[in-house]
This record gives sequence, structure tokens and C-alpha cells, in this order.
Amino acid sequence: MRRILMHVGPSVGSYEVLLKSVKEDVGFGSPEFVEAMRSALEGVRYVMGADNSFTPFIIPGSGTSAMEAVTTFLREGDRVLVASNGLFGDRWRSILERYPVKVDYIGSEPGRSISAKSIQEIAESKHYRMSFFTQVETSTGVRAPVPELVKEMKKVSEFVALDGVAAVGGEESCASKWGIDYYVTASQKAIGAPPGAGISTVSGRLMENIPERSVSGYSLDLSNWKRTMESFLDGKGSYFATPPVHVILSLDYALRLAREETMDKRVRRHIASRDQIVEGIEEMGFETVAEPGLRSSTVTGVLTGKISPGDLLAASLRRGVEFAPGVHPALAGRYFRIGHMGWITEKDAAIAVHVLRGALKEVS
Amino acid sequence: MRRILMHVGPSVGSYEVLLKSVKEDVGFGSPEFVEAMRSALEGVRYVMGADNSFTPFIIPGSGTSAMEAVTTFLREGDRVLVASNGLFGDRWRSILERYPVKVDYIGSEPGRSISAKSIQEIAESKHYRMSFFTQVETSTGVRAPVPELVKEMKKVSEFVALDGVAAVGGEESCASKWGIDYYVTASQKAIGAPPGAGISTVSGRLMENIPERSVSGYSLDLSNWKRTMESFLDGKGSYFATPPVHVILSLDYALRLAREETMDKRVRRHIASRDQIVEGIEEMGFETVAEPGLRSSTVTGVLTGKISPGDLLAASLRRGVEFAPGVHPALAGRYFRIGHMGWITEKDAAIAVHVLRGALKEVS
Amino acid sequence: MRRILMHVGPSVGSYEVLLKSVKEDVGFGSPEFVEAMRSALEGVRYVMGADNSFTPFIIPGSGTSAMEAVTTFLREGDRVLVASNGLFGDRWRSILERYPVKVDYIGSEPGRSISAKSIQEIAESKHYRMSFFTQVETSTGVRAPVPELVKEMKKVSEFVALDGVAAVGGEESCASKWGIDYYVTASQKAIGAPPGAGISTVSGRLMENIPERSVSGYSLDLSNWKRTMESFLDGKGSYFATPPVHVILSLDYALRLAREETMDKRVRRHIASRDQIVEGIEEMGFETVAEPGLRSSTVTGVLTGKISPGDLLAASLRRGVEFAPGVHPALAGRYFRIGHMGWITEKDAAIAVHVLRGALKEVS
Amino acid sequence: MRRILMHVGPSVGSYEVLLKSVKEDVGFGSPEFVEAMRSALEGVRYVMGADNSFTPFIIPGSGTSAMEAVTTFLREGDRVLVASNGLFGDRWRSILERYPVKVDYIGSEPGRSISAKSIQEIAESKHYRMSFFTQVETSTGVRAPVPELVKEMKKVSEFVALDGVAAVGGEESCASKWGIDYYVTASQKAIGAPPGAGISTVSGRLMENIPERSVSGYSLDLSNWKRTMESFLDGKGSYFATPPVHVILSLDYALRLAREETMDKRVRRHIASRDQIVEGIEEMGFETVAEPGLRSSTVTGVLTGKISPGDLLAASLRRGVEFAPGVHPALAGRYFRIGHMGWITEKDAAIAVHVLRGALKEVS
Repeated sequence: MRRILMHVGPSVGSYEVLLKSVKEDVGFGSPEFVEAMRSALEGVRYVMGADNSFTPFIIPGSGTSAMEAVTTFLREGDRVLVASNGLFGDRWRSILERYPVKVDYIGSEPGRSISAKSIQEIAESKHYRMSFFTQVETSTGVRAPVPELVKEMKKVSEFVALDGVAAVGGEESCASKWGIDYYVTASQKAIGAPPGAGISTVSGRLMENIPERSVSGYSLDLSNWKRTMESFLDGKGSYFATPPVHVILSLDYALRLAREETMDKRVRRHIASRDQIVEGIEEMGFETVAEPGLRSSTVTGVLTGKISPGDLLAASLRRGVEFAPGVHPALAGRYFRIGHMGWITEKDAAIAVHVLRGALKEVS
Repeated sequence: MRRILMHVGPSVGSYEVLLKSVKEDVGFGSPEFVEAMRSALEGVRYVMGADNSFTPFIIPGSGTSAMEAVTTFLREGDRVLVASNGLFGDRWRSILERYPVKVDYIGSEPGRSISAKSIQEIAESKHYRMSFFTQVETSTGVRAPVPELVKEMKKVSEFVALDGVAAVGGEESCASKWGIDYYVTASQKAIGAPPGAGISTVSGRLMENIPERSVSGYSLDLSNWKRTMESFLDGKGSYFATPPVHVILSLDYALRLAREETMDKRVRRHIASRDQIVEGIEEMGFETVAEPGLRSSTVTGVLTGKISPGDLLAASLRRGVEFAPGVHPALAGRYFRIGHMGWITEKDAAIAVHVLRGALKEVS
Repeated sequence: MRRILMHVGPSVGSYEVLLKSVKEDVGFGSPEFVEAMRSALEGVRYVMGADNSFTPFIIPGSGTSAMEAVTTFLREGDRVLVASNGLFGDRWRSILERYPVKVDYIGSEPGRSISAKSIQEIAESKHYRMSFFTQVETSTGVRAPVPELVKEMKKVSEFVALDGVAAVGGEESCASKWGIDYYVTASQKAIGAPPGAGISTVSGRLMENIPERSVSGYSLDLSNWKRTMESFLDGKGSYFATPPVHVILSLDYALRLAREETMDKRVRRHIASRDQIVEGIEEMGFETVAEPGLRSSTVTGVLTGKISPGDLLAASLRRGVEFAPGVHPALAGRYFRIGHMGWITEKDAAIAVHVLRGALKEVS
Repeated sequence: MRRILMHVGPSVGSYEVLLKSVKEDVGFGSPEFVEAMRSALEGVRYVMGADNSFTPFIIPGSGTSAMEAVTTFLREGDRVLVASNGLFGDRWRSILERYPVKVDYIGSEPGRSISAKSIQEIAESKHYRMSFFTQVETSTGVRAPVPELVKEMKKVSEFVALDGVAAVGGEESCASKWGIDYYVTASQKAIGAPPGAGISTVSGRLMENIPERSVSGYSLDLSNWKRTMESFLDGKGSYFATPPVHVILSLDYALRLAREETMDKRVRRHIASRDQIVEGIEEMGFETVAEPGLRSSTVTGVLTGKISPGDLLAASLRRGVEFAPGVHPALAGRYFRIGHMGWITEKDAAIAVHVLRGALKEVS
């Protein structure tokens, strides 16, 4: 029987999307791929709310690869600010500390978000090359108040980088309007394609500020990929390193579906599914990890009170639905997570609630 | 009509292999994936001729990512030797020069290989942390005389790294027997899976020499992936960054086919196809770029004399076969390349010769 | 977004099953097909509860083709009895009336079943070559009380034919135990494979009674297919007319899954889904067309009272679930049908109830 | 390694076409299917050269089912003429003899065709309701001289039926121009889709002559399917018996490709492949079964002189190509057959010749 994946890593899947990758004898220079890449790059701009002054990148790797490629824009000795809401916010720090830059860090309680005020406090009289934060913290399901944080960061840093890995495709995403300079995501989350591609858009202003000698390595140095992406956008093949051809065939199709659906409807679909799930778990007596105003539309962390989240997960899996365990150390053993992104519908939300209700009955 | 890809990047494809990646609702923690990863890691050891003292790695990215991950084992100030037979040999240098290590470099004429003697000359009284070279130089089709070069490198350097990207799966590959410490390949060449995964095996001796503070970045630092790979080898899920799940489902199947076929037969199959192609092009009055003794069994560079290689490629494409252009600057406009790896058979070789013969007639 | 098909024709689908049909260059004589056919024929026996004295047939066509092939066993002038619970019961009559046999017919009210008593009444002092009836009447969802009807039919006819098209794979099916001589089904209903194959098992006693000159045509004359089926059962290829090769590759896989699941568990799974759906629609104030004791586990006809079934269907389709309209003329405009067979799970049943509830709210 | 099927039953396959059938939750009433059926019916007219006065039919079953459905137009006692070039010509007789019609029969030597003269001779002073013959005799590869035979048949019979099973899609096909009344084919031969659908077009004049009481059975009675086909042509769903939904999704795609390619180019492609193969086998010292003027462009029977055709077939299969054995009893043990239809290209023809040459060397 079909198992349903409501994990937070890969999203609710789609055979239609996966089947687009089944093309033999298509290589990185074949016309089908060149067209898919061109169209996917434009799709990336669309789902990220990035106008044509932004350069889109699709590179081999994971969301983490796309995050690390920000080093393209950093010079030895640069001072940067990391504002973290949890494990994936901390990943910015882990990456940046491998490079010769100076990292300032602020964090928040699980379920809450760093605030404009906390940025004001740490930044006093300091100036940063770049500030880093996370749109949806996958470890808890908290969505940061992006516009007000960007506004504050812009006061204290030249550029702003946002990790939208668990957000883009399911949350409102407005690179241009918000003034994001480096906006990252991955193929396999709310965009709903298979994993294998790191995705970013870079503002025109940041592209003009690629340092002559950055701290970056070789394969994640976007200045190596720049010409390649420009060439694909122009409808011509180009090579720097072999792209994940078949993943991108699926990614292109997923992004076409997103354009067809429109991001407005897509965000509303994710919100409706989230609301249906939150209502369901509250009826069971559970609470969300995220404060009500900070609930993302893609991931819900569920505090299970006296019930063991591990038991609930196991009982749900026996019913054919795979949820994700909690990973935030501060809440160890107290919560689990429901991924509701990508091709999620109210039907899947109905399944999630139905299966959880059965699982709860079993383990209570 | 079906086009056939005899390019050197992606290999002759297989729908059977691609279809294995069509699995909805399989994530990086799902049992199917955990088993595929375990089995693929063992398959990597098999096709690389690496015994159980080697640690296999499959990471998101390209062959270049896997090459760059060698930085896991380098410390600031280390001296290294790059021995290059062409463009992809030069890539080792391009990567290493992004890091704070000292690079010595020797090159060769196109069609020939660096020799044991040339290593003796440059290495005189020097000692290297690691030496780097390339098994099959994709830009020309030259196969290096691996065993004798390793022997010489071992005299002058602690560790030896070999780029087997265009070789592993189609050429004899003996990590253990030859004494390779870092052996790299990618999913999409002679292994015959879709691109998206960087692959390596690391000798036990090198694994024990991971420096406390290496020069590597974050996502290509294999010390971050070590625990993950060990866990998968042990049949348990683990996470550092999201792997290209569906690519690995295909990769696992391709590696299972390789084990079933046995590497002995697989190498003989590649050699037979190469011989059939070489015989065909020689009958047309063409020559291989590689010296007779250095012809790889996976890529053949073809010098076309007075015939324009571009015209031949275009005429072949009209006949439904996509060969690869030449890329070595020293031979610009004088050759093209035939990829014959992965699922190549004598039937494909017959097509290559038939189509080229027709194309030649057309453009002569 | 994925639409879910809970129609009564094709069942809840499975990509896993469909993907098994994607095999290029497999013909009716290829080893993969010969093995699939052998295994599928055995699987047919298994899901029909037919022991080895029965001969299984898989022929190109639909369930109707398999029904019509019963003419293989009829001679000009034979007298037959059709006992019908609705539209698909009537189909037996429509078929038989095209042939030179004498047809007696009894029917029932929609929602109810022909009874043992009604057979006694019509059959008084008559003797039939064969009696025909229907296990699950697709037009209403009524399941006939098979064992007691067979018992009665055996008293008045030499052979008994049962249409199990909407039943086999989801209802208890016991060809041997019940004493069925000709048991029919199709690939696309509760077995859960794509349509294109007519399926039957024939008792040893009936096989021994193939008349020298039957009334049947050519391609539906099972005496033409007999040798072919015996050959496949024996693991050898054979040809009479081209079988639907790829449909059978999927069918074989679906039947393997059935054996793996076991028919016991499979029937219980269908019953659980039916119960969940019936409970749901009763909560909405609806009733089943079938009397409580005659509810099938594969199809539920739903009487919608004052609500228009057409409006409910349209509102459900907008929510992504396709139910089936009612087709029984006596209940025109008063009911619709839910198919819950094949790969149905409690998750799909939860969706059905959830979507119907939303649709009802919309149209009330 | 990929095996290539150059059998005469299923044709050279296409994964692209097969993958179109992978659609879950599409039933006979779903919009995708209704559109595919509409488009496929128009495609059938196109590949058969039938103008809009012809009614196209796509029914569940095989080519034989489509042949047998001609009984829709025959009345008890009708006199018919079968002109056969071999085994598949004889099939018309086998079918018709199951019905209460009077069958006259003429045959030809293997490799040759019935002639206009032989029809004149048998028909002397007789008049037939319908004449039947075969465009390409699959058992030998002989193509009948269709236009001149039709001309002669029209003199002695009201209607003319042509079996184009091994022809349509690869041979010139002109239902309107030639004046065919009943033109049959199947999905899996030169059209290049999977098997499972019987296909026909019926002239307006014949449609107007459906007898009130024909000799046909139920599921192959086209008067039952008429309304269904008309409804689909009109873009609306309709039901008589469940069609092979997924086979038709592939069939529609194959027919779209045919329209895109144009029948002119498609026929030329088949002829070029045939010529390449004939040239190849003649170089090996073999001859075609068919007289030079009667060689079909889809099937070639090869007389192997002193070489055992069975040995050649086995040696070819070991080289990965499956040819078809000979089946004409008059030539038993003296020939084999090469199917070159559907997606055949000069590349496949090159393989056929290459593999046969190797096989011949092995068995000589």
C-alpha cells in the first residue's frame, strides 16, 4: 500500500514530476536540457519573487551547497551577522566559521523568533558585510517576520542573505520587494521536485560586488557558474561542471506547475492545509511549537504533552504516513514535525489528521 | 525518433536505470533509500576495486565536488603535485589553487601522458603531501599508465589521489592493488546512472590522517559526511545534508547491474566497443588523438584530418547520434570525441561507425 | 494537484503497478513476458480461489469479452438462466441473446438481490445448461448471496457462471469451494491493474464439456486459447492472437502484490474501507442503495435524499476526487457511487469522507 | 544490456510512447482519456488515409478482434471471398467460417501474391457481399498489390475489407483513394504503441449498410460501439465496455508522432530501413522470401539457404537482437523474419545487419 511522506525534508511527492526526469540520452548539452534549464532559471525567479535584475543559479548539490556558495561574495576578514531561530539558522554559522570571516551570532528560544530589537542590540555601532537568517526554521516550524528583520538588517549590514529552503514555493517569497540580496532554496522542499539541486537568486547589487579574491572554494564559487547561467538564460548550452540533468528536468516541470497555479494560490493552498492540520492537532489537545503568529505554512512542529512523540510517529507509520521526528535539542522528546509542502492538498491534510487521530487512540 | 547520446559527459543511457528513480514518497530516511544507499556504497567499493579498509562516499554534487572534497585531507601550507594530461588534469590545479596549499604542476602533450620520468624530474629532493592525476583524460581520450605513475608518486608523496571520473565502470579500477588513497568518480559516466552524485573512496591510511583543521569548506568536508556514510553502511539512516535521493536509487541499480555483469566482463565489453570504433574510424582514414598504447576504453578522440569535425558532428546529429566536440585548445578544430561508456554495446558501436560513415560521405 | 479516482470502473490506481508496464522491446515471445504470463495465470487462480483443476485464461479485451467467451461452452439450442440484480446482470442477457440459445431471465429490485426462492420459482421443472449471475452489481453496489444462490442454481442447471468483475480482488472469492464453473473478472477493478485484459477460470468439469461445435465466434473461443494458456502455465511462449503484453506485465505485478498481502487481509482491508465510508455517509444523513446485509466491499451506491447527486459529484471533483454517477434507471437522479477497490486504504476512505463532507456543506 | 526487438509482432519499441501510459487515476471518463480517445480516433483516420466519411473504431482486444468485428456488417447466408497470401490471409477464413456465411477462398504460393487474374477466375459469375485480403502478409513479408486487387474485387463484391495489421503506419495506406470499406489494424505493429487495441475505419457506405440483424456477437458488434466512438470524436465520454485506457494514452501519443512526422516521411523511413536490410542480407548471400516487387517495408522474410535459420536467430539473440522465426509451413526450416516497423531507423537497420553478419560468421 502506498506510504505517504509528510516529512520535512522531501515533501509530499508527485509521480507526474518524477516521471519528467525519465529521459534517456539527454545530456547537459542536449536541446531538451538547455530549454529545461532556461525555463527553470526563469521559474526560480518567479517563485522567489525576484525581478530580472536578479541572477538565478541552479547548481549541483543540496540546499546547504547553495547556502555555502554565498562565500563567493565574502572577502577574508569580512564581519558577518548570523541571526538564528534554531538548528538551520545555526547552519549559517557552521558554514561561515569554516572561512576566514568574523561571525557575530544571536539566537532565539525554540518556537519564537529573533526580533528587530535583538538585532539592534547586537549591531550597535557595528557594521556587517552581510546578515544571515532563515525564513522557515525547519526544526520547529517557526516563520521569521521577514520584512521587519530585513529592514533592521539593512541598517547594520551592506547585504542580506535569507535561507528560504523550507519556505520558497509554499510561503510568500518576495526577493525584490523585501530587498533580499542572496536568497537560497533547494529543489526538494516546497517546490516539490526531487533533491539534487541547490538554488539561489542574487541581487544585481550583490552581483556587482563579487570580490576579486573571495574566500570561496572552486565548485561553489558562483563566479565560475555565472557565465553558464547567463548562457542558459539565453537559450544556449554551457558547461562548468555537470549539472544534475534529470533532477532539473523534474525541477523545471515543478516550476512550470507553480507558474500555472500562481504563487498566490499556492501560498493559500499551503495555508489552508496548515490551518486544517493545526485545527486537527488542537482538537487532539496538542499545541504547535511555533507561537500562533509565527506558524509557517510548510512545517508544523507539534508538542505532544504527555504522549510520546516517538510512539505517535511509529503508530502513524504503521498507518502509512511518515512524519518527521523533532530535532531541536531544547525540546528533545517533546515534539514531532509534520511537513505539508509541495503538492500538499486538503486531502493530504485530511489524511494527516485522520491518521494522527487513530495513532493517538492507539498509544493513549 | 530516438537520438543516441555518445557524448563524453553523460554516457549511453538506460531507461531501466532511470525508471528506478521514479519512487514517490521516498525520503532520505525511508527504508528503501537507506537500503539503496547501503548497497550503493558497497557497489562503489566494488567498481573501484577498493577493499573494506576503504571508506566510500556518495555526496550531492558533481564529479568536481568529489574532487574538491579532497581538501578534507589537506592542511594550510601543504605542498602538492598535480600531473596533468589535459583539461581535466588541469582541473585539479584550478581546485587546489583556491586553497592555501602550494601546488607544483607538470603537463603533457595532447595525446600523450605524463611519464614516470617527468615525475622524477620535478620531484627531485621535494616531498609532497599528496600527488594528483587523472585516469582517463576526457578531453582527449588518453588513459594514463596508472600503476607505474602511482609507483613513482609514492616515492615523492605521502598520498596519491586519482580522478577516475571518465574511467570507473569502464576501465580496470584497482584502488587497493594500485595503492590509491583518494579515488574519485561521478554517477553519470561509465557507471551509467544519471548525474547528481559525487563519488569517492578513501584509503584507511588517509582516513586516519584527517587533519584537525583542514582547509576544506563545510559541505564538501568529508569529516562531516563520515558518520553518515558509516551509518548507511550499517543499514541505518543518517543526515548531514539532503542527498540526491532519486539519483541514488538509480545509481544503486546501475551498480547492482555492474556487480551482476562483473567488472571483468564490463571492461572487456568497453574494450570491444572501443576496438570496433577505432577500427571503423581508421577505415575512414582518421586517427585517434591518443597514442595507440594510451587509448582509453571509454572515450575516443578522433583527429579528422582535412575534414571539419564540426561538419561531421552536425551531419551525425542529423542522423540521430550526438557525439562530443573537441575541447583541448591545442587541437582546436582538428578533432571530435566519441563517448563509449556505461551501457555501450557492440550494437551502439556499430551505429557509431555506420552513422559516421554516412556523415563522412555527406561532408566530403 | 493529484486527482483521486474513486470511480467504479478503474479502481484507485497505483503508479507502482503502472510502471511495471514500461518495458521496451518486450514482445509476446520474450522471456520476461512468458514468465509474467505464467505467474499471472497462477495469480488469477489464487485471487479467484480456484484450485489447480481450474484452467485460468487471460485474453485481450475487457470484462465483457471474458463474459462473452462463455459461449465456448454453449451449443445451439441450449437453455440458460440469467438471474440479474441490475445493469450488469442484464449484460449476461444482452450477450447471450446474440447467440442461438434460449434465455430465461429473472431480475430484482435495485438494492436487493435475487433470492434462492426466486430461482426455485422460475426453474420449476426446467433444466438449464448454465445459470448466470453477478457477484457485485456495479450499478448499485449490491453483493449477491453467492453460496446460497449457487446451491440453488446447481439444482436446476448443469453449470454455473459468475460475473466477478467488480468483486474479485476485493471480495471473498472461492471458485472451488462454491462450485463455480465459469468465473469472470477484469484486470482494472479490484485487482488494481490497468484495463485491457479479460480474465476467467474454468472448472475442470466444464473444460471437459467443450462442445465440438459451440456457438462462439473466433477470437473469444477459449478452445483456441486453451493450448496457449497451458503452454504459458508450463513456462513456454505460445501464440493465438497478440496479448496485451504491457497490461499483463502490470497485471502480474498486481497479482503478486495480492498474493503477498494474502486475500484474507485484502478482503478485510476492503471491508474496513467500506465500513469507514458507510459510517461517514450515514453521519451525513445518507443511506446506501444496498440493503445492509448486501453491501459489497468494493462499490457503495449512496442515496442522497434531497441533495442532488450531480451537484455533490461536481463539488467533489472540484475538491479533487472523482466519484461515479448513478446509472440504474430505477434510481435515476437519486444516487451516486463510490468505488473503493484495488489499492484502497483507510487513508483514501478518510479522503472520501472528508471531501464528501465539504461538498455536502457547499451544495446544501 | 538492452535487447532490441525486431520481431514482427510487437515492433521496435519506444519508451517515450510507453511512458505516456503511466497515468494514475485516469479512468474511461476522465478528461485526459476523453481527449486522448478523440485525438487517437482522428489519428487513426490520418494513418489509414481515411477521410471524414469514414468512422474510426478503437476497441479492446487485438488485431484479430478488429478483424472479427467485420461480422457487424454480415448477414446470415452472405457469400464472401477470401484472397489469401499466407497464414494471416487464412485467418480471415478461420474467422468467417465460425459464422453462418459462405466462404470462397483463393490462395497463393509463399513469396508471391494473389493476382487480379486469380480473382477474376474464381469470381466468374459470382457476386460477393464482401471480399477480404491482407496488405502485408506477416508470415512472409509479401505486400499485396493493393490498388489493382481492390479494383478487381470491386467488380465482384459490394464491399472490400483489408487487413492492414502489419502495414498501417509503415506502408502507404489510402482507405479513401483505394476505396477500402473495412480497413483493420492494431496498436502494436507499425503504429508503434503497445498491444491491446483493435483498430478499424469503416467507410460511410458500409456504415449505412449495417444489417438489422447481423451475424456478430456482442462485444465485437460495432453497432454497439458506434455511439461511443461518435461521442468521443465529439469530445465527450461514453461507455459500452471498458476500453484499454492506458494503452490508448500511448496509442494517441504514437499517432500524434505519426502526424508530426507525416505519413510520407514515415513510409520513406520504413522503405529506407527495408532497403538497407535487404542490401545487407543479399551481401551475405541470402534472399528475401518476397519477390522483389512485393517486398513490404515492414517485414522481411529471409531465406537462409544452407544456413539454419534457427542457429542464426539464436546467435543473433546472444548478440542482443530478437528476430522472428519463420512460420509459413511451406517454408519450414528455410527462413526467418525481420520486423522493421514502428520507430525503426537506419540506426536499427545498421544494427540488424551488423548483428546478422556476426551471427552468420559464428554459425557458418
